[in-house]
Amino acid sequence: MIIVMSTGATEKQIKSVIDKVHSYGLRTHPIYGVRKTVIGVIGDNKTVVVESMSGMPGVESIIPILQPYKFAGREAHPDDSVIELDGVRIGGREVVVIAGPCAVEGREQLMGIARRVKKSGASLLRGGAYKPRTSPYSFQGLGEEALKLLAEAREETGLLVITEVTDPRNVDLVGQYADILQVGARNMQNFVLLTEVGMSGHPVMLKRGPSSTITDLLLAAEYVIIEGNRDIILCERGITTFESYTRNTLDLSAVPAIKHVSHLPVVVDPSHATGKSHLVEPMCLAAIASGADGLMVEVHPDPDQALCDGPQALTLDGFDRMMDKIKAIADIVGREI
Amino acid sequence: MIIVMSTGATEKQIKSVIDKVHSYGLRTHPIYGVRKTVIGVIGDNKTVVVESMSGMPGVESIIPILQPYKFAGREAHPDDSVIELDGVRIGGREVVVIAGPCAVEGREQLMGIARRVKKSGASLLRGGAYKPRTSPYSFQGLGEEALKLLAEAREETGLLVITEVTDPRNVDLVGQYADILQVGARNMQNFVLLTEVGMSGHPVMLKRGPSSTITDLLLAAEYVIIEGNRDIILCERGITTFESYTRNTLDLSAVPAIKHVSHLPVVVDPSHATGKSHLVEPMCLAAIASGADGLMVEVHPDPDQALCDGPQALTLDGFDRMMDKIKAIADIVGREI
Amino acid sequence: MIIVMSTGATEKQIKSVIDKVHSYGLRTHPIYGVRKTVIGVIGDNKTVVVESMSGMPGVESIIPILQPYKFAGREAHPDDSVIELDGVRIGGREVVVIAGPCAVEGREQLMGIARRVKKSGASLLRGGAYKPRTSPYSFQGLGEEALKLLAEAREETGLLVITEVTDPRNVDLVGQYADILQVGARNMQNFVLLTEVGMSGHPVMLKRGPSSTITDLLLAAEYVIIEGNRDIILCERGITTFESYTRNTLDLSAVPAIKHVSHLPVVVDPSHATGKSHLVEPMCLAAIASGADGLMVEVHPDPDQALCDGPQALTLDGFDRMMDKIKAIADIVGREI
Amino acid sequence: MIIVMSTGATEKQIKSVIDKVHSYGLRTHPIYGVRKTVIGVIGDNKTVVVESMSGMPGVESIIPILQPYKFAGREAHPDDSVIELDGVRIGGREVVVIAGPCAVEGREQLMGIARRVKKSGASLLRGGAYKPRTSPYSFQGLGEEALKLLAEAREETGLLVITEVTDPRNVDLVGQYADILQVGARNMQNFVLLTEVGMSGHPVMLKRGPSSTITDLLLAAEYVIIEGNRDIILCERGITTFESYTRNTLDLSAVPAIKHVSHLPVVVDPSHATGKSHLVEPMCLAAIASGADGLMVEVHPDPDQALCDGPQALTLDGFDRMMDKIKAIADIVGREI
Repeated sequence: MIIVMSTGATEKQIKSVIDKVHSYGLRTHPIYGVRKTVIGVIGDNKTVVVESMSGMPGVESIIPILQPYKFAGREAHPDDSVIELDGVRIGGREVVVIAGPCAVEGREQLMGIARRVKKSGASLLRGGAYKPRTSPYSFQGLGEEALKLLAEAREETGLLVITEVTDPRNVDLVGQYADILQVGARNMQNFVLLTEVGMSGHPVMLKRGPSSTITDLLLAAEYVIIEGNRDIILCERGITTFESYTRNTLDLSAVPAIKHVSHLPVVVDPSHATGKSHLVEPMCLAAIASGADGLMVEVHPDPDQALCDGPQALTLDGFDRMMDKIKAIADIVGREI
Repeated sequence: MIIVMSTGATEKQIKSVIDKVHSYGLRTHPIYGVRKTVIGVIGDNKTVVVESMSGMPGVESIIPILQPYKFAGREAHPDDSVIELDGVRIGGREVVVIAGPCAVEGREQLMGIARRVKKSGASLLRGGAYKPRTSPYSFQGLGEEALKLLAEAREETGLLVITEVTDPRNVDLVGQYADILQVGARNMQNFVLLTEVGMSGHPVMLKRGPSSTITDLLLAAEYVIIEGNRDIILCERGITTFESYTRNTLDLSAVPAIKHVSHLPVVVDPSHATGKSHLVEPMCLAAIASGADGLMVEVHPDPDQALCDGPQALTLDGFDRMMDKIKAIADIVGREI
Repeated sequence: MIIVMSTGATEKQIKSVIDKVHSYGLRTHPIYGVRKTVIGVIGDNKTVVVESMSGMPGVESIIPILQPYKFAGREAHPDDSVIELDGVRIGGREVVVIAGPCAVEGREQLMGIARRVKKSGASLLRGGAYKPRTSPYSFQGLGEEALKLLAEAREETGLLVITEVTDPRNVDLVGQYADILQVGARNMQNFVLLTEVGMSGHPVMLKRGPSSTITDLLLAAEYVIIEGNRDIILCERGITTFESYTRNTLDLSAVPAIKHVSHLPVVVDPSHATGKSHLVEPMCLAAIASGADGLMVEVHPDPDQALCDGPQALTLDGFDRMMDKIKAIADIVGREI
Repeated sequence: MIIVMSTGATEKQIKSVIDKVHSYGLRTHPIYGVRKTVIGVIGDNKTVVVESMSGMPGVESIIPILQPYKFAGREAHPDDSVIELDGVRIGGREVVVIAGPCAVEGREQLMGIARRVKKSGASLLRGGAYKPRTSPYSFQGLGEEALKLLAEAREETGLLVITEVTDPRNVDLVGQYADILQVGARNMQNFVLLTEVGMSGHPVMLKRGPSSTITDLLLAAEYVIIEGNRDIILCERGITTFESYTRNTLDLSAVPAIKHVSHLPVVVDPSHATGKSHLVEPMCLAAIASGADGLMVEVHPDPDQALCDGPQALTLDGFDRMMDKIKAIADIVGREI
């Protein structure tokens, strides 16, 4: 931690800051520059120090040097984390594809999609049972009925199941049916939910919040990890910007950026990010080319009839075509599918 | 709802879209322009229609005409909503000031602040019992112990109490101690929590999410209203932008904008928005000048020692000075305090 | 400047960075922390150092300590700058109001507005002669004819004239007619134009670019200052965000923020920021309450007929009503008009 | 154009709006909905109509239906535009790679890079002669001397030359040396410069402004086209967002989005977008996978010594490695290099 004193800071103010640091059991190392004094703080910095001291007289700013997360960072775990689950490996050499409808609408719809995406090379089935929707008047999901259908689809196809949990009281219930619990973008900083999925023992996929930095995302992962759950998959799904052609702006440079600072696997969801099916394939290809460990893609046999987010779904044929190209690109970047 | 067909849309595509609209029991009104055809849709539009049809062949875009919220809008309720609570009126001619520490740290701290802000003209006491923090290593609040202290402070000072609820399982508990339940910015789209506070019977203060539009905020309010709870106070507390001098960018034009489209009261929280105490007073004055129905301000007797967000807290003297100016400005804009 | 070495940086890498710094004639001051080494750099840091060294092996990041601007900052000039111009003082105790049409449309329009705003208390007349428009199909201004009309209006009313210059080749021409040269938001980083107005000898109003930070704005001012022109007025006119209700998001906390770090006067333009006339008065009041040194407001006798930005113009009566309140608020914050 | 009347709009207000539209020589087509009236406007809508009428009493909003650009859109030119220049085709089946230093620093540096990137498959040489820099204290380029070196490098290697022009007075000069004129991101809405390069007869590369939407970019292209110059290459180079790990956020979904609405070629500049060399290769691969027509990449033999933007430059070896992968990915998406 570096404390930057303002240009006019008095010796007394500097001394007072140094004394305060010492009172926390930390050591100081002042540097008297030409125009400013900065004070290096040495020791295992407590966050609270940063927070409370920046208002002291003469302090211009406080600059943290260490990353605010501990276990989610590569410094704590230099090698890539690989999550192994019933023969599916996430974060290793293999690229995983998660596919399925936005929302589970019924048995026929789900089974049809599940069989087809399995055949095309997907390893996991997605499908919303509880849908967090901006409007209370939008379709909110079939709830437990959907969970049962997902489990049935797994039984038949062998696809693992991932579905979103939105309520801390439902974590156990969802965990009975799903292999991986998804925390949605809007809940990325729902710390109560993060703690609950952290205690669940299930792998967790954590979607990046629409106004969350990479650091915020890793701090959210940290909430899960400190409950003892290290099986976390991060998901880039677009951030909020001024551009309105797409629903969100897919931040693909976050993929190599996150992999640089963290050991956790990163998948990309181009369906929610773009909101437009004609952008999904190009962004799937780009995601794998950028180094993503996997994709999450919405697929619907008849997008015009979908109860949720039809415009962003690939058709079953569109999914097949995309998968062929994905396999070729994975090979070029040293991955396989 | 207006369906815009793309320039090259065929007659067959146009007919197919019209048929689809009719299948929903809605009427159509096509306009054949010089270069494009648009189809007006008449009837009580179902959201799902908008969602599912935008992917149909030949459809370029779908433009909603009606606001997506019903009860939160001024069309449903032309007059300002006023929330009356033990003699405090929010949304009326009176400007309300909510003041207190970021987090409740102990009896002495809380009582000292409560007595003082009461004396200076505050009507409500704020104080975090459950603190949602970006980092799991930051102070998370004292929980129920803090709730008891808040209730004690109300007992002594007569200030009403507002505090944040972060867990749907805690809504009842918090409601036993607090007068108004606060839903924090990070939980603005935690729909499970919105539903729960909607059913609680308590007035709710809903903070705008950092990447939420005004429309998103009103849709979040709608989640509370449809549970039968119309006592909602909206709070502008800054949005996420590229500017990093302030923690968030306080969007003060949202105040008259929200009041133009909605009947709900709007308060402003300059402390969280700016994150810097030297910006708090100017932004408090500006908020009242812009037409806000109230303020939420963090106050701490000794900001350097605060366990949470010290740098953004006003001192007790600073709060007094701010209140004097607020009273004068309220008068100019036809309000009182 | 602080150079942060990554956790795994070798002694050799550290030495190599230190040697590089010394080769620039700067001194180093390393701090060996528990997990990381940081190197304080002492001396008059050259920007190029920061830029070139951050890619060296073992370097995690480089953190500048000094502000990147010199003359625009308060450290170089602790007192507020006051620009005096024919009896009008900008940046002093007086609040200045700049009013007029978006674009000069003709003699009758301009004279009518000029007489009226003069009577209501404005000190400067605005009016676009050269309009930078997003679309080439929008009205682009009357050019020199408009400049002549502005000069004529000054002659008659005594109002000083401010108008935008968009072309470095036109700086002399515009300077023959106008008292203050305006550099528009889209040209804030048109460094060729900044240099030219810097050399012109005329006071300059510099509007903040829609994606420019406060620091970027002050660096743009620095381009003008280093040409020897210190008469600069900064203008907050909204930044680009995701909120689409308003055209831009007026960043009013930038007003006290800029005044904290810089000595230059700051005016606010709520017309362009909001794009909606019903938001203009509240934001004018809020701007003065936040500490702005002045306002720039669009006024039109008949907004429905305006050739440019009618929806954001105040009517003449609306301007009068606003001015009455502005005077009262100025008084509360220790200013006058 | 659709004019949406507010819920309470009176018949008189509706009539008055209709009359106003007729006065512009346009036809109207009102739709009386359940809760609102909307008025379709038919004819070749003048921009000014949209602008002036949205403030009329009873008008809630005005929604344009036609794209605001004419010649830059695919409706005007359904096939992809291909720019042919001395054997280099941009926008066709071939993917073009533009490589070179951020700034021309001297003969040896430039020639060394030019020979090497030519050998690795680049078709165009980039190199800044006039550098628009945020700070006036950063290196501003060698000016005409740099232009001469670029021309010399073309002579020797056969690479075409692209370089930025920042001053309308320099367009002729730069055009004497360069094959393609680049308009930088900060100048994307410098309409004076756009007009000048439009008249130059040289192909133009137009970089997207950091807060410009896709529509804004196409309107900027329109400024060039209406001067008779249709040889325009668009360049995505990152937009301004809240994420600070990267310098800008590369908006790769803009590539297929632009190609959907426009016929103009799109290249991607990952160097400026990310600002970090370790992100450049992944983003180059992703750009080609997303359908970009080319890349613009900064290369430097010794990034630590670069006078400008060293941290984002690839080394010569890094460039070679990237090119090998690019060729393989181009093949998968049906392109070649």
